Amino acid sequence: MGSDSDLPVMSGAIQVLEDFGLPYEVQILSAHRCPDETASYARESAAKGLKVLIAGAGWAAHLAGALAAQSTLPVIGIPIDSSPLQGLDALLSTAQMPPGVPVATMSIGKGGAQNAALFAVQILALLDPNLARKLENHKQDMKRDVLLHKNNKLQEHLSERKTS
Amino acid sequence: MGSDSDLPVMSGAIQVLEDFGLPYEVQILSAHRCPDETASYARESAAKGLKVLIAGAGWAAHLAGALAAQSTLPVIGIPIDSSPLQGLDALLSTAQMPPGVPVATMSIGKGGAQNAALFAVQILALLDPNLARKLENHKQDMKRDVLLHKNNKLQEHLSERKTS
Amino acid sequence: MGSDSDLPVMSGAIQVLEDFGLPYEVQILSAHRCPDETASYARESAAKGLKVLIAGAGWAAHLAGALAAQSTLPVIGIPIDSSPLQGLDALLSTAQMPPGVPVATMSIGKGGAQNAALFAVQILALLDPNLARKLENHKQDMKRDVLLHKNNKLQEHLSERKTS
Amino acid sequence: MGSDSDLPVMSGAIQVLEDFGLPYEVQILSAHRCPDETASYARESAAKGLKVLIAGAGWAAHLAGALAAQSTLPVIGIPIDSSPLQGLDALLSTAQMPPGVPVATMSIGKGGAQNAALFAVQILALLDPNLARKLENHKQDMKRDVLLHKNNKLQEHLSERKTS
Amino acid sequence: MGSDSDLPVMSGAIQVLEDFGLPYEVQILSAHRCPDETASYARESAAKGLKVLIAGAGWAAHLAGALAAQSTLPVIGIPIDSSPLQGLDALLSTAQMPPGVPVATMSIGKGGAQNAALFAVQILALLDPNLARKLENHKQDMKRDVLLHKNNKLQEHLSERKTS
Amino acid sequence: MGSDSDLPVMSGAIQVLEDFGLPYEVQILSAHRCPDETASYARESAAKGLKVLIAGAGWAAHLAGALAAQSTLPVIGIPIDSSPLQGLDALLSTAQMPPGVPVATMSIGKGGAQNAALFAVQILALLDPNLARKLENHKQDMKRDVLLHKNNKLQEHLSERKTS
Amino acid sequence: MGSDSDLPVMSGAIQVLEDFGLPYEVQILSAHRCPDETASYARESAAKGLKVLIAGAGWAAHLAGALAAQSTLPVIGIPIDSSPLQGLDALLSTAQMPPGVPVATMSIGKGGAQNAALFAVQILALLDPNLARKLENHKQDMKRDVLLHKNNKLQEHLSERKTS
Amino acid sequence: MGSDSDLPVMSGAIQVLEDFGLPYEVQILSAHRCPDETASYARESAAKGLKVLIAGAGWAAHLAGALAAQSTLPVIGIPIDSSPLQGLDALLSTAQMPPGVPVATMSIGKGGAQNAALFAVQILALLDPNLARKLENHKQDMKRDVLLHKNNKLQEHLSERKTS
Repeated sequence: MGSDSDLPVMSGAIQVLEDFGLPYEVQILSAHRCPDETASYARESAAKGLKVLIAGAGWAAHLAGALAAQSTLPVIGIPIDSSPLQGLDALLSTAQMPPGVPVATMSIGKGGAQNAALFAVQILALLDPNLARKLENHKQDMKRDVLLHKNNKLQEHLSERKTS
Repeated sequence: MGSDSDLPVMSGAIQVLEDFGLPYEVQILSAHRCPDETASYARESAAKGLKVLIAGAGWAAHLAGALAAQSTLPVIGIPIDSSPLQGLDALLSTAQMPPGVPVATMSIGKGGAQNAALFAVQILALLDPNLARKLENHKQDMKRDVLLHKNNKLQEHLSERKTS
Repeated sequence: MGSDSDLPVMSGAIQVLEDFGLPYEVQILSAHRCPDETASYARESAAKGLKVLIAGAGWAAHLAGALAAQSTLPVIGIPIDSSPLQGLDALLSTAQMPPGVPVATMSIGKGGAQNAALFAVQILALLDPNLARKLENHKQDMKRDVLLHKNNKLQEHLSERKTS
Repeated sequence: MGSDSDLPVMSGAIQVLEDFGLPYEVQILSAHRCPDETASYARESAAKGLKVLIAGAGWAAHLAGALAAQSTLPVIGIPIDSSPLQGLDALLSTAQMPPGVPVATMSIGKGGAQNAALFAVQILALLDPNLARKLENHKQDMKRDVLLHKNNKLQEHLSERKTS
Repeated sequence: MGSDSDLPVMSGAIQVLEDFGLPYEVQILSAHRCPDETASYARESAAKGLKVLIAGAGWAAHLAGALAAQSTLPVIGIPIDSSPLQGLDALLSTAQMPPGVPVATMSIGKGGAQNAALFAVQILALLDPNLARKLENHKQDMKRDVLLHKNNKLQEHLSERKTS
Repeated sequence: MGSDSDLPVMSGAIQVLEDFGLPYEVQILSAHRCPDETASYARESAAKGLKVLIAGAGWAAHLAGALAAQSTLPVIGIPIDSSPLQGLDALLSTAQMPPGVPVATMSIGKGGAQNAALFAVQILALLDPNLARKLENHKQDMKRDVLLHKNNKLQEHLSERKTS
Repeated sequence: MGSDSDLPVMSGAIQVLEDFGLPYEVQILSAHRCPDETASYARESAAKGLKVLIAGAGWAAHLAGALAAQSTLPVIGIPIDSSPLQGLDALLSTAQMPPGVPVATMSIGKGGAQNAALFAVQILALLDPNLARKLENHKQDMKRDVLLHKNNKLQEHLSERKTS
Repeated sequence: MGSDSDLPVMSGAIQVLEDFGLPYEVQILSAHRCPDETASYARESAAKGLKVLIAGAGWAAHLAGALAAQSTLPVIGIPIDSSPLQGLDALLSTAQMPPGVPVATMSIGKGGAQNAALFAVQILALLDPNLARKLENHKQDMKRDVLLHKNNKLQEHLSERKTS
């Protein structure tokens, strides 16, 4: 992540990785304040055994692009809405990469961080049928959560509304 | 792809997949005009042996999201600038997915299509060391192309400019 | 509606339907988290006797489009401002539908939800002269509310202002 | 429509109405240049037997709103991209209506005009089972067109590409 | 003004008119909820002796345009940031008028309301040399306020800062 | 106007002034390239007998604001779409003036230039009943043009369409 | 700065100049409310020994451009997010200067103010090797702050999280 | 510059540097395709005797930021409108830098490139009174060009217009 102030957003990704029992490391790295360490981190990531890089940053969010410039591992970028322009700047800075250096851009903010981790799980599940099953279950749970729990609560709420 | 008019953009992806010698299939599917076939395609994609889904669409671009709703394979989305708003609508419709259903969004247009395919190669390279090496070479070629060929042509152009 | 967090907005629609004494059902459905149930719901809606479908969603708001893909009933979409981009993403995702699959898009947020229900009433009034009369009265009440009540309160406020 | 220069866009709506065999009338009316005639037109529309009003306009597109202010018939608005801001102004001016006066906003431009007419047909089909059947057929034709004709052409194009 | 909720913004205009001692009337009128009364108000305004019309509205702000459609008096429009899009919708709906029906658009919100009244004063000053002198004095006061009062306070603040 | 390249747009204003038989002068002045001459021009404008100032500029369009800073005459600003951002920059730079220094902003481009002149005529008509009558006639002509000429041409076009 | 309300933002610049021990002066000047004093200030700045001008303003932010129009010293502009459009207006008004009159635009808000001062230091460091060394140290400190302090705190936080 | 396709824009900068007789070097460097060479270039620039770095790039324009991350020399960034979003993405990616790493952002496109070079001259003129005089003359020439040549041509054009 580009700054310690991004942790509340990025914790969305950490939580998902822990839910799926996947090992991870978290680091503050800045494409602009410590570019060499950021470059080294990305360059050495594959050899260290990392499989996917996730970068979250706000403003002119260059972190994901800086990692992608140095590694052929998949890089996932999360635009963070920490500027007055509410993440439109981060979204464009993360998504509009030139041909040859892709960054997989997620939605703005904490939901995007959750999705970044989930997308990493989807990639890793190609290597691990066990993980693929967990993903399937997670998708079913999500569906049940919408169709049963949330809908039940809604119907209760609506019938209370009518009787009141 | 969402429409046959998207082919000139999506051919950017096809070319990259062919350059890397990867098998692929191309299909026109529309989240809005043939939703069941789109859903079936995504649902059956993993069993058919597909590893990654790439979707390009313009306007309220729902195709990538519709695939991601039905499959736990990684889905890559390409916003296409076919509307008067020049792809801003497609970018937001593709990227701003809710938590739980990630779409890896690329840049708008043909460069985004090339990157979508390249990102798919980066994912597949986690399964295939040979592909990883090809990717490394491709990255080196790209660098050399910038540093040598393009720069040489630029310097020639500039020295002609000075002497004229 | 796409999520239970959308209820405060969508209650604007429920209230209007109740004011006009129209039967309705409310359901949480998600184009991305339970796509099959969403598709079935839309496909079966006409046979069940539903006349109009109203969908509210935020972010890359695909719910209205997903319903419209599956039914020839009129579908009304409400963009909800639940993302950092304040509903611009939801507005474009809802309105910019491809030719052949219309969604009637309302304004962003709770006022849009009220208008969605009112627009549904306007459609149903084509089938029911009684409802058409109620609509006429509602329009007259709205006018009187502006011209009399609100203006009277304003004039009082202004004359207090002058004497203070 | 707001201006004769909008005809190439609005002909998209006319064509769909003719395809479905529906009677219609076309008029240039301007919320700003002939407001009284526009108001009268809307006020008298229901008595004349009109069922749905469709309005297309560009720039600060007030035409649909001006009709909706005067009638309880359903009003459908088409934002036209005739200004340098490419229809963003028309989209916001058409969609962002205050509570109490809904306008069903379609996508920007000619596709939006086609959808406006199709949406009108969907409304009228609630009154006419015959029309409902035609709509179902139209939806099936559209699907077949995507799945068969467009896909066949695409596959031919791709196989030519491979052999060349 | 379009709604009583616009009064906190529009009071900016009222205050300026009172400071310059100009007679005015304030009215809630809505292009959408009471279009005929709005039209009549504008049509009769010149005969009643009004010289300038000022309209403030939010969302798809049509009020200024509706007045301008009915009168050849100068109409000044104030876009109000009452929607989630923070006044961008109101700005475009107010400013992007078609040729032939001008609206003099001010900045968004309360400052725009103050400027609307001041601009009205500037117009009326063409008819009244006394008012022109008052305007000159107001401009000098504003300048002195910046150069003396505000700057003195700033310098004090800065010297406190240094000594603390 | 800010640059000679703005003439095709600004000629829209010149034409209207000539149509109404009003005297005018045209000058290239730049808030950035000749700020002193621009300031003097505005400062001396009232004494020279000018009644209204019209300024058209593109990009970070400061010309209208620079005139308004130096004169209490009404200043009308025309945002010109000469930059890649298609006039959004010029619109915001012209309209978003601080309290105390109003600029009456018109729509973007040539239609805005026509409206600027027409708005100037509306101001001057407060001083000249003859001009007020001409304005009324112009408004009637505009209405007739829409209702008769344009509509007749449209109906002809439509009946040709049907017979072909 | 354009207004005393901009001080909380501009203090970001003041702090950096003090940290580097550079002399500076602070002034409220407004391109619109005291244009002559603003022009004189800029015109006399070089003769007074000033080397760099920094201007911060919101809305239609013309202050930096007004200084640049009058001086050949480097002018740095800070867009301030004081309007409902959150600084997009100020960014475009500051950055989109015409050819011939450059303004060095920083990011929106307080971070931009810090950067404006730092950029001024970078310019002055070309004249003063001592300052260049200080800048190098500042860059190293910033890097250490990210890599050590912030990362250590993050790792502590994460290990607490795991144990809790 | 980030790509050889940026040369038509960047030649605007080259021309200005030649007009002022300043030595320069031009290089294609890409933050994403050859990040190490870009980093080295910036790191070694001060030792090589470079005084100012100018970077032009489109899309998610990271080049200027990547240089600024590696050098304490002043870095000037030019957003290039080479993407479908017409430079809005490049503007935000260039300008919205985090505190500590400033980039002096110019306007979008060729005018921005001219201004980048002119701004570099303004910086260098602090070291060279001769250059400062040339800049003063350039400013006077620019003013004369507007006031005399362009205005004369305009007046001729207008008088031709009147006589025709």
